[in-house]
Parts: sequence; structure tokens; C-alpha cells
Amino acid sequence: MSDLSPRRAMTDFSFALLASSRTARQGIIRTPRGDVRTPAFMPVGTAGTVKAMLPQSVVETGADIVLGNTYHLMLRPGAERVARLGGLHKFMAWERPILTDSGGFQVMSLSKLRKISEDGVRFASHIDGHAEFLSPERAMEIQRLLGSDIQMVLDECPALPAAHADIEKSLALSMRWARRSKAAFGEQPGRACFGIVQGGTYTDLRVRSAQELTEIGFHGYAVGGLAVGEPQSAMFDTLEATTSHMPRDRPRYLMGVGKPDDIVGAVLRGIDMFDCVLPTRSGRNGQAFTRTGPLNLKNARHAEDQEPLDQLCRCPACREFSRAYLHHTVKAGEIIASMLLTWHNLTFYQDLMQDLRDAIGKGECEPFAARFLARYLG
Amino acid sequence: MSDLSPRRAMTDFSFALLASSRTARQGIIRTPRGDVRTPAFMPVGTAGTVKAMLPQSVVETGADIVLGNTYHLMLRPGAERVARLGGLHKFMAWERPILTDSGGFQVMSLSKLRKISEDGVRFASHIDGHAEFLSPERAMEIQRLLGSDIQMVLDECPALPAAHADIEKSLALSMRWARRSKAAFGEQPGRACFGIVQGGTYTDLRVRSAQELTEIGFHGYAVGGLAVGEPQSAMFDTLEATTSHMPRDRPRYLMGVGKPDDIVGAVLRGIDMFDCVLPTRSGRNGQAFTRTGPLNLKNARHAEDQEPLDQLCRCPACREFSRAYLHHTVKAGEIIASMLLTWHNLTFYQDLMQDLRDAIGKGECEPFAARFLARYLG
Repeated sequence: MSDLSPRRAMTDFSFALLASSRTARQGIIRTPRGDVRTPAFMPVGTAGTVKAMLPQSVVETGADIVLGNTYHLMLRPGAERVARLGGLHKFMAWERPILTDSGGFQVMSLSKLRKISEDGVRFASHIDGHAEFLSPERAMEIQRLLGSDIQMVLDECPALPAAHADIEKSLALSMRWARRSKAAFGEQPGRACFGIVQGGTYTDLRVRSAQELTEIGFHGYAVGGLAVGEPQSAMFDTLEATTSHMPRDRPRYLMGVGKPDDIVGAVLRGIDMFDCVLPTRSGRNGQAFTRTGPLNLKNARHAEDQEPLDQLCRCPACREFSRAYLHHTVKAGEIIASMLLTWHNLTFYQDLMQDLRDAIGKGECEPFAARFLARYLG
Repeated sequence: MSDLSPRRAMTDFSFALLASSRTARQGIIRTPRGDVRTPAFMPVGTAGTVKAMLPQSVVETGADIVLGNTYHLMLRPGAERVARLGGLHKFMAWERPILTDSGGFQVMSLSKLRKISEDGVRFASHIDGHAEFLSPERAMEIQRLLGSDIQMVLDECPALPAAHADIEKSLALSMRWARRSKAAFGEQPGRACFGIVQGGTYTDLRVRSAQELTEIGFHGYAVGGLAVGEPQSAMFDTLEATTSHMPRDRPRYLMGVGKPDDIVGAVLRGIDMFDCVLPTRSGRNGQAFTRTGPLNLKNARHAEDQEPLDQLCRCPACREFSRAYLHHTVKAGEIIASMLLTWHNLTFYQDLMQDLRDAIGKGECEPFAARFLARYLG
């Protein structure tokens, strides 16, 4: 993994740590489709599109990688169809790396009539109700058909809070599925397979999960089953107890997180990768992220505000339009409001990641985080 | 109007005919905010946005001018507010010319509880029901507050078919309102006021209307009250009888038209300017215009079609994506489908206008039109 000779770098997946600031890490994931600077935020491109954005605009925000959802893509347009069309990168005109989840989380959150067995999970499509089946083997087959650069194992993602015994039982299944997922992934030069640490907020289970996955051996390790309703402090406590048991030389990915303050806190605790619908979904709902906290553009106080959202921001929403215009187009339900606020929010997230990378590079992540959080939360 | 010396060209509104091909005309409208090449198609930016497009993207399609709707803007965000925010150009980040309609047509088509008197029209807002009033003087005041480069007189737009006596009575009111509108427009250097020829499909009334407006004297002349349900042949017959009575040295604008074949036929009959929601609205509904006719991307036959919409088109939808991707995103209701198909359709319209200008410049408009229509309608 650490051999960065030119020939290997062209065809292999690798991760290199470049700097650290206490437990915070700065690094780079190299893939044949391009590098991913870490800590990295991955915009969510659920159904083959980062909603309300053209791919070139996503690049301009500073994103090195996007996430695709196996659950949505398997239902529509279908993994085999995407493969016949040349793979997900070509389909959605995104040449850079793509990480796909395994579909497990969405099966739990979106579909009804689901039934979990040792073999996998049967469920009804939320689009047309037709019966579907997802096993570790099928989840990996779908991700291979999509042509995903980073493929996630299928896991069970239990709701919190839950009793220790229930989480332990669920975790055992997830670990058996992780082993089957890894076997199904096989050998795919240049592509990676990530395991997912589960265990709820129970430290002993998180540690056990991290150790079992490390024994199986993955290109990277995710932390799943957090940010599902528990307090932020519980998430941070769990992270602190978990990341120290995850391999130092592999990327660590906190799934589905999160708010800017969640991300800053998780970077301080050794996380390298994030994804979340928040910047895109909030943008479509009239909410903008700023250095002094989120702003609801629907609010009437913006109606005659000639100032941009953020004087210093480089996105088109801030360079070319006033808060008054954003207020008007949000109120009028105009698509341009979704386009501009999504672009702004993704730019805000990517600029935050760049600031974090810079701060870690200087060994000053904690003071940066303190300043950012004081201003953002204050 | 024909003095194009540098000083005047900087501050005045003018129109120059550059070429003609039988009755088809090629020309240029010069305004302090930029030139408009005619025949011109104006994308509709109803509420301060060409829906699903950023202003720079509208420029890239080849548009020299956009249209704004007085009715929508007076209700939200309000003309006085737009004026306080620096005018419509600054508000919507569109530096080039803007034409605004007078609001009359939308009052008839969108609002309920409307009551027309000699003074003007009382109506209820379609947004929140509150009472509004539009007179010739208020319509011109709103357009002045918006900072519109080409301002339209308030007219009454009767539904077709209608009896000669009814159209005659309506026309008389429209002509009195045209006189009041012109007086209210006053002197606005660099800006233009256009009259609107009415008269339904009655040739005698159209001729009378054109003559009365010419006596009042306007910077340009529109044809209103067509493409409201009558057959295309009736529209063309009416146009032929009308344009010959409109001043040769002023731009002629056919309001709310239309389909590509409508535009081609109207250019042949001496029209210089067009606006229509069709390319933008169709784009949001999954319909694409192509040289061989419109295409419905919802249709399942596109599901695995790797070809672009149009091999020769320069828009991002055609350069970067397949018909299969457009089909998928239309079916999934993704915003990117509206963005891409709107961009494509506006590019198609602007390329058609450029082709028409080129053909007229070569004196070959009729053979071009015949070839285009044979392919488009065939």
C-alpha cells in the first residue's frame, strides 16, 4: 500500500499519511482515477447526480470524490444497465473517484417490508414496491458493476438506542457479512474494499468490531451506525474509543456525518473521510452554511439585504447575487435557489476541509478547531 | 434612430436592418446594455430567473436578451423593492438587455376576480389573493422601476375565437391604453417603448391597430393576441396581413411565440423578435427539441441509448451525457434533468436563430426554412 513508485501509483489504490496534529491526520488517497486529499468530504450523488449540480460545478467546489448510493442505483436505473452503459463514472460524467455504499443503510431507512436473514435482506422497492434481495455477495456485485472505486461491505445498521445484547447480535451478523463481502470483492486492481465498524455506543463492541475487521484486512475502515440520533458527545466518545483501535495506515471514514461541527470534532479524533446529504439537502430547503452558523434564507429579514451570503466565499451565489435575491428565489420555489445554495454549501464544506488540512499540516488543528467552533456555534 | 455615431450608440436605443431575404429581415438592436441580433429569441425569465439556468449559462446558449414578467415581479418581490435593490439587471445578475411585458396577458391568464375598466384592471394575486391594480401608467411605472430596456404598453388581450364587434371594442381600449402608456413612458434615454398590435384574426382590425400605433410612434411594434389557440395557418395569415403595415425601420416582435416551426414561419413573414416559455418549460417536463422534431426523454426507448441527444449540439447535455442518462434523471425527477434539458432547448432555439440570421444574410431564408421544416416536421 505504501509503495508509490510510478507504475504502482498508476494502477493501485493507496493511502499515505502526510501530517498529523495530535490525533488529527492529513493524508492522500491515490487511485487510478485521481487523488483524494484527506480529511475529505464526499458530496452525495445518490441516484447518479449530486442534486442540482453539474459535475463540473462539483469539481469547482473542490470535491475530489463523490458518493453513490447502491440502494437507489440498483432500483433505478439498475446496476446491470449502468454496466452496459459503461459504468457509473461515464454515466454521470464524473471522471474522479466514486465511493459507493452497500445499500444496507438505505434498506433500513427507506424500504418497507424488509426481512433480514443470515443470507441477506429481502425488501420492497420504495419506488414501485417490487421485491428485491440484497446479500453481501449481491451488494459487492452491484458495486463492481457500477465500477465503484471504493466499495463498502454490507452491514446491518441497527437503530439507537439499543440494548448491548441486541447490538452484539447485530454486530456478529455484520462481521460475518463483512467476511463474505471481502471474499466477494475478490481482486480488483486500483479499487478498494472498506470494512465498517459497528457496535452502537458500546465501546467494547466497537473495539471488538475494529479488531475483527483488521484481521480480515481491508483497504480502509469506516465507522457506521453513528449520527443516528445519539447526542454529539456520545458520538465523539465512541469515536475516541474506536479510532485508536483502527489501523493507522488505512483511511478512516465516518459514514453519514455530518454537520460542520460534527466533522471538525471527528477530524480531531482521527477521521479522514466524510459524506452527508446535509449541504445538498439544506441547500434545496433554503438553508445556507456560513462561518457564523447556518442561515435560513426564507427569513423575511433577508428580503432587502444587498450583501452576499459570505463576502469571502468564491462560489457564484456569493460572487454574483445578494441575500435578497436568494430570499426571493427560495420563496418563489425557483430551481436557481437550489442550484446556488447547493453550490454555496458544498463550497463551504470543501473550504472547511481545506482549512482543516492546512491546519493539520501546520500541526495546529486544535486551535483552528477552537476558533472555528467558537465562531460557528457562538 | 439610424444615427450610429459612437456617442449616440453608447446612450441610445436603435435598430438597423442589415439584410433581407424577401420579407424576412436580419438586423441589430443597439442598446446601452448591448446589442441584440435579430431575428432574436428571448428566453423567458419570469420571476427574475430563466428557470433552471444560471445567467452565465444563458449567455453561453447565445441569448442577447431575456424577458421578465411584470405581473410576477410586481407581486413578488415587488417593483419598488427591485428598484431599491438596484434594478432587475443587478438583482438577477443579467447585464445584457431585458424586455419586460406589461403584465396584461398574465392578469388575464393567471389571476382570478379580475375586472377591467377604462382606467385599468383590478385583480387578485394568484400567490396570496391580495387585491392589485394595473393601469397603463402603473404598468409603465413598474417597468421603469425594474429598469427594463424594452418596455411594453399595457393592452387587453382577448381570448380567441371572438366576434368582430368584441375584438373591435377591445382593440379600441388597447389603443387608448397604448397612448396613455407612451405618455407614461416619457423620455428614458437608451430605453425603448413598444406598442402592441391587436385585432384578433381580423385583418381590418390588425391594419387599423398597426396604423394607429404608428401614428402614436413607438421604438418598436409587437404583434399580440396570436398563438392563443388559433390554427398556425390563421396566425400566419394574420401576420402576413399585419407586418406589411408595420414600420419597416423598427423591430417587430411576435409575443409568446412559439414552436420552432412557428418561429421559422413568422421570420419568413417579417418578424424580428420572439419570446416563449416552450424551450424552458418543455425542458423541465422531459422534452427536448432536435433537428428532427421534439423528443420525449421519458420514453422507455431511451433507457439504454448511449447516443447524445444531438451529435452536433454544443450544449453540456449533448457533449457530456447520453440519452440514457437524461432518461434516468427525468424519470427520477432529478433537478439536473431540468438543468440539462433547459440548456439544450435554449441552445437549440439560439442555434436556430443564428441559422435564420445566416440564411437571411445570404438571401436564402426560404430554402433554409423549407429544409429545416421538412426535417423538423417530417
